[in-house]
Amino acid sequence: MQKIITLNTDKKNGLYDITAEIVSIIKFSKVKTGIASVYARGATAAIMIQENWDQSVQNDVVTFLNRMIPSGIWEHDRQDNNGDAHLKAGLVGASETIPIVDYSPGLSTWQNIFFCEFDGPRDHREIVVTIIADNS
Amino acid sequence: MQKIITLNTDKKNGLYDITAEIVSIIKFSKVKTGIASVYARGATAAIMIQENWDQSVQNDVVTFLNRMIPSGIWEHDRQDNNGDAHLKAGLVGASETIPIVDYSPGLSTWQNIFFCEFDGPRDHREIVVTIIADNS
Amino acid sequence: MQKIITLNTDKKNGLYDITAEIVSIIKFSKVKTGIASVYARGATAAIMIQENWDQSVQNDVVTFLNRMIPSGIWEHDRQDNNGDAHLKAGLVGASETIPIVDYSPGLSTWQNIFFCEFDGPRDHREIVVTIIADNS
Repeated sequence: MQKIITLNTDKKNGLYDITAEIVSIIKFSKVKTGIASVYARGATAAIMIQENWDQSVQNDVVTFLNRMIPSGIWEHDRQDNNGDAHLKAGLVGASETIPIVDYSPGLSTWQNIFFCEFDGPRDHREIVVTIIADNS
Repeated sequence: MQKIITLNTDKKNGLYDITAEIVSIIKFSKVKTGIASVYARGATAAIMIQENWDQSVQNDVVTFLNRMIPSGIWEHDRQDNNGDAHLKAGLVGASETIPIVDYSPGLSTWQNIFFCEFDGPRDHREIVVTIIADNS
Repeated sequence: MQKIITLNTDKKNGLYDITAEIVSIIKFSKVKTGIASVYARGATAAIMIQENWDQSVQNDVVTFLNRMIPSGIWEHDRQDNNGDAHLKAGLVGASETIPIVDYSPGLSTWQNIFFCEFDGPRDHREIVVTIIADNS
């Protein structure tokens, strides 16, 4: 089964929790054991597994990436002025593959699945979720 | 087939080679061609494909991440004092997907599969390995 | 279906667009919906999803990684003098998993798939592409 999650983003840089949507897609698929491939469409976005106890780690991710990858100094900035967003996206990565364990994502207690926006706000972002059942 | 590898870790930051365990799981699955999804449960841990000629690259990974992501300066440190561990985990990434080629992981000569501990030592860490056979 | 893409590289550090080869493999597989696992064999190489509007982002990726990970200061340099290449490879990551949507890679308009060379030039590099059809 394959489903597309859509969302809008309200910040230039921010993490958006998509765990509940992925839980729903897995439940709907009725797959007990397998994998869920989660893919961010857009070369200024990414997927990160991260803690969701409160907002602090999400803030720290943004602070850290902004500190490591300043804006305005890249060759690509002459086109779009978003060179930093592409570097952040490439480094974090567009895909994560999460195991399906007993009809649920096999996350640990504090792991959630986040869409990372690096060039927002945007009206329309897409995440492709593909469910593959264990066949071995 | 899905199996969970468990291990304990003896360092605050360290790479632990789990290639042998993954080779065993693939052999046991009798899958000739496909993929092995390897997933680190825990928001302060990650999976990295890296060289295993000797300990040097593993040491360099720890040195580099500690230099890039200092401890004690993050918002999350007020809760758990492990903000750096979460940032390292998010950046390296919780999952890698490795091809199965002729009943073995399709690694190159010097590539091995490592569990990355960023907030150890820990008594119990889990890695979920899911084997999907080629069906196309 | 599983296929190996081979390429040679002409730079020490560079991104090489392999999207066309992956499109061909997916078309050949006749899989309408599923995933394509893309894996770089070699502990000094990686896979990155990135913009391909022009060469600028690719240049920025190389500039950024060289700035963040200088060469010549790592423990592994005493063996091979390529410690930086291993760190870049480990950070970017050996694998990406791309959804197959309607017989094509489910990339956004500006996303392409790149092989990242960090220790070139090399006569022979291999990328393993494994196609798994949706079975759920």
